[in-house]
Amino acid sequence: MNFASIVYILGKLLEIEGLLFAVPSLVSLIYGEKQGLVYGALAVICFLIGFISTKRKPKKQNYYAKEGFIAVSLGWLIMSLVGALPFVITKEIPGFTDAFFETVSGFTTTGSSILQDVEKLSRCSLFWRSFTHWIGGMGVFVFMLAVLPMTGAQNMHLMRSESPGPDVGKLLPRLKDSAKILYIMYFVMTLVQIALLMITGMHPFDAFTISFGTAGTGGFGVLNSSVAGYTHMQQMIVAVFMMLFGVNFNFYFFLFIRRSLKDAFAMSEVRAYLMIIAASTLLIMLNARETFLNAFFQVSSIITTTGFSTADFNVWPAFSKTILVLLMVTGACAGSTGGGFKVSRMLMLAKIYMRELRHFIHPRLVKNIYMDGRTVKEETADGVKVYLAAYMIILGVSLLFISLDGFDTETNLTAVIATLNNIGPGLGAVGPTGNYGAFSSLSKLIFSFDMLAGRLELYPMLLLFAPGTWRRQG
Amino acid sequence: MNFASIVYILGKLLEIEGLLFAVPSLVSLIYGEKQGLVYGALAVICFLIGFISTKRKPKKQNYYAKEGFIAVSLGWLIMSLVGALPFVITKEIPGFTDAFFETVSGFTTTGSSILQDVEKLSRCSLFWRSFTHWIGGMGVFVFMLAVLPMTGAQNMHLMRSESPGPDVGKLLPRLKDSAKILYIMYFVMTLVQIALLMITGMHPFDAFTISFGTAGTGGFGVLNSSVAGYTHMQQMIVAVFMMLFGVNFNFYFFLFIRRSLKDAFAMSEVRAYLMIIAASTLLIMLNARETFLNAFFQVSSIITTTGFSTADFNVWPAFSKTILVLLMVTGACAGSTGGGFKVSRMLMLAKIYMRELRHFIHPRLVKNIYMDGRTVKEETADGVKVYLAAYMIILGVSLLFISLDGFDTETNLTAVIATLNNIGPGLGAVGPTGNYGAFSSLSKLIFSFDMLAGRLELYPMLLLFAPGTWRRQG
Repeated sequence: MNFASIVYILGKLLEIEGLLFAVPSLVSLIYGEKQGLVYGALAVICFLIGFISTKRKPKKQNYYAKEGFIAVSLGWLIMSLVGALPFVITKEIPGFTDAFFETVSGFTTTGSSILQDVEKLSRCSLFWRSFTHWIGGMGVFVFMLAVLPMTGAQNMHLMRSESPGPDVGKLLPRLKDSAKILYIMYFVMTLVQIALLMITGMHPFDAFTISFGTAGTGGFGVLNSSVAGYTHMQQMIVAVFMMLFGVNFNFYFFLFIRRSLKDAFAMSEVRAYLMIIAASTLLIMLNARETFLNAFFQVSSIITTTGFSTADFNVWPAFSKTILVLLMVTGACAGSTGGGFKVSRMLMLAKIYMRELRHFIHPRLVKNIYMDGRTVKEETADGVKVYLAAYMIILGVSLLFISLDGFDTETNLTAVIATLNNIGPGLGAVGPTGNYGAFSSLSKLIFSFDMLAGRLELYPMLLLFAPGTWRRQG
Repeated sequence: MNFASIVYILGKLLEIEGLLFAVPSLVSLIYGEKQGLVYGALAVICFLIGFISTKRKPKKQNYYAKEGFIAVSLGWLIMSLVGALPFVITKEIPGFTDAFFETVSGFTTTGSSILQDVEKLSRCSLFWRSFTHWIGGMGVFVFMLAVLPMTGAQNMHLMRSESPGPDVGKLLPRLKDSAKILYIMYFVMTLVQIALLMITGMHPFDAFTISFGTAGTGGFGVLNSSVAGYTHMQQMIVAVFMMLFGVNFNFYFFLFIRRSLKDAFAMSEVRAYLMIIAASTLLIMLNARETFLNAFFQVSSIITTTGFSTADFNVWPAFSKTILVLLMVTGACAGSTGGGFKVSRMLMLAKIYMRELRHFIHPRLVKNIYMDGRTVKEETADGVKVYLAAYMIILGVSLLFISLDGFDTETNLTAVIATLNNIGPGLGAVGPTGNYGAFSSLSKLIFSFDMLAGRLELYPMLLLFAPGTWRRQG
C-alpha cells in the first residue's frame, strides 16, 4: 500500500476544509456572532496542518483501486471528525457523538438530525451545517480532481469510489474536464435556485441554505418547520429543484453542452425516474387526499433522498407510507447527488431477472442485457447483484444493534434505511416531526457508519474494516 | 412446449390427491363425522378423473426445464384449488378465497391461517389441514418420482424445481433412489416423533397432526393455543424435532446410511445453522428474560419456518423481535423441509461478498468461492444473487398491494415475509395470537401467490406469468 500517497491526499483535504471553514466565519461577520471566531481559528489551523503536511509531494503518485478506496473512506471520516469540532467547541451541540452524527449526516447529504430545535443554533453554525450538504453533494475528491494539478489515469479510482451509482460515465476524454463540467453544472443550478428563491421574496440566508440542502439532496433546514413555513411558490421551486438534482447529470451534459434533446431523453434511467415520480405523486394524491403540491413535494423529497418536508407523512394511510418506503429504497438516478439504491440499478435488476426467466424458457438464447441500446457488461450486472447482497447484510446487522434501544419496528427499519440511503427522516419516531436524538450513542455511531457507507456506495467503508486491507505488501 | 406431458403429469397428480383424500375420510369413521362423506366422494372423483386422463401415456416423455417448472407450478395450483374444496363443501370455511388461502398455506407448509377458532373444525377437516403440511413438506413430485415408473434423466428438472435450496445433492447415482431414501428418512423421523409424543401421554390424534405440522415445518395446530397447551416435555420434543427437520437431509444420509459422523459435521451449512439457533436462543433468554424452553422453542419454530408458538413473542422487546425477523428471512437449511432464504444461501452471499472485498485488495487473485472444500460453480453463485433480486422484487410489489388494507408497517412487512418464507405467523396483527382473516380477498390471493412462490423457490410461479412461456414453439 502506498501510504505516502494517502497521507498526501488527506493533507490536501485538510487544506480544503480549512478554506471551507472560512466561509461560515465570513457569515458570522454579517450577524456579528462570536462563534465566527471558532470557525476562523479552525480555518487557519486546518489550512496550516494541511499545507505543511503536503509540502513534499510523494514520489509515486499513482493510486490503485485499493489506495483510492482507502483514501476516500479515511478522507470522509477525517472530514467529518474535523467538521464536528465547531459544534462541540461553541457548545451548540455539546456531545461529540451527537456533533459527529450531525456532521456525517451533513457531508453524506443525509439530513438526519439529533437536534430538537434548530433555530437555537447561531447563524454561522446553521450556515456551516447546510454548507456541508453542498460540499458533500458533489464530493470533495471530485472537487480536488477538478482544481488540483494532479495527473495519472489511476485518479479515476478516486472519483469512482466517491461518485454515486453503478457507472460513472466519462463525459469527456480527460477525467479532469469531466469533473470540471460536473462542478460547473452543479454550481450554476444552485445559483439559479438561489436567485429564484430570492426573487420570490425569500431572505438571502434562507435562500442560500435551503438551496445548499436541495443541491446536495441533503435536507437540513434552518427552521423547525423544515420547508413548510415558506410560500407555496417557494415550496414548488424547492420541489422542482429537488427533482432536477436527482436526475443523472449526464442528462444535463447532453442537454446543455451537446444540445441534443434526443440523446438526453434516450436515457432510460431518466425516463423511468420521471415516470416513478409522476405515478407516485398521483397515487398519493388519491390515497392520502393530499394537494398536488404536498404529494409532489414529499415524493420528490423522498425519492431524491433529500428529506425536506411540508407535510407530516407519518399520519398518511398505510398505502401512501409504503410508497414512500419503496421510494426510499429506490433512490434517485445514478450520477446525481441523490442517494439510495439508484433507479438504474433497479432497472438493471429487473432486466437481469427477466433475462433469467427468458433463459429458462429458451435455454440456448444468448444472455446479454441491454440498456440504452448498449450491452451491459457482465461485470456491471454482477456488481449490481453484489451491491444488493452487501446492502442487505449491512441492513440486517444495523437493525439488530439499533433494536437494542427498544423502539418499534417501523422506527428501527425506516431509521436504518433513511441513514443507509442518505434520506434523513424515516417513519415513526424518526418521522418528519421527530429526530434521532433519543437513540443511544452506539446507535448514533452505527447510523453514522451507515450514512458514510451509503454515501460512498458501501464498499470503501467496508474495506476499512476488512482484514487484509491494512497488511503491508507489494 | 410438450403439453401432452404436462397434462399426463397433472392427471397423475389428481390420482394421488384422490388417494390422499381417502385418509381423512377414514379418520371420520373413527369419530363418526358426516363430513367424511365429502372427503370420500372427492377421493373417488379425483382418482377417477386422474385415472382416465392418464390412461394413454404421451409418446414423448422427456421434460425439459421449462416443462418441469410449468408442470410443478400448475400442479401445486391445481392441488391447492382441489384441496380447498372439502372446506368449502362442508361449509367449515365457506368463502372460496379463504379456503384456498388455508390450503395453499397447508401445502406450502406456511401455516398462516385465516381461522379465529380452529377447534370448531371437524376432526377429519383438522386432519386434512395438518396432512397437507406433511404432503407438502417433502413435495408431491418427489413422491411421484419415488413411486411411479417414470424414466428419463430429465426428470431431475421436476425434482429440482420442487426441492428447497440452491443445490439438490444427488445422493445416489439414480435419482429415483435418492427420492426414495429422502422419503424413507422423512417417514421414519415422523413416526419417531409420533411415538415419542404418544409415550409422553399425548392423544394419538394430536400426536399425528402435530407431527405432520412439525415434519413439514408447517405449523398448523389443532388447538387455539397452538402448542402452548401441551406439557413441557412434549413442547421440548416438538422443539427438537422442528430443529431436526430444518437440517439438510444430506446430513442424515451421511449419518445413518453412510455412517460417517465426520462427513455429516463437515457440512458448513449445518454447523452454521446449529450455531445460529444456539446464539439466538441465548440472546433471547437474556433480552426477553424467557426460559430456555420458550426461547429455544420460538427460535426453532421461526428459523425452520414452522410457526408453532408457545409464547406470544409479539410482546417481547424490540431486540428479540428483530432477531426473530432476521431468523424469518434466514430460514432453515437447503434440502430440508423448511422455507426461507436458506442458511447455505446466506453463507454463499457472505462468501461472494468477502471475495469481492478481497478482489479490491488483490485484483489479481483468482476469484473462486469454496464451500465445504469444493469450489462453488459461478452459476450457483449467480443463482443466489438473482434469487435475492427476485425475492426483493416480489417483496416490494406484495407490500404495496397489501398496504392498501391499511394495517401498520410491522404487520404488513412481517405478513409478506411470513408468507413468502412459508413461516406462518408474523408480528403485529398477524402475530402468534392473531390471524390473516382480516385482510381483503385481494391480499389473501397475493399472500397465496407469495406462499407458492416461496415454496417453489420463486421461479416456477414467476414463469407462469412471464410473457413467452405460453407461446407455442419447438
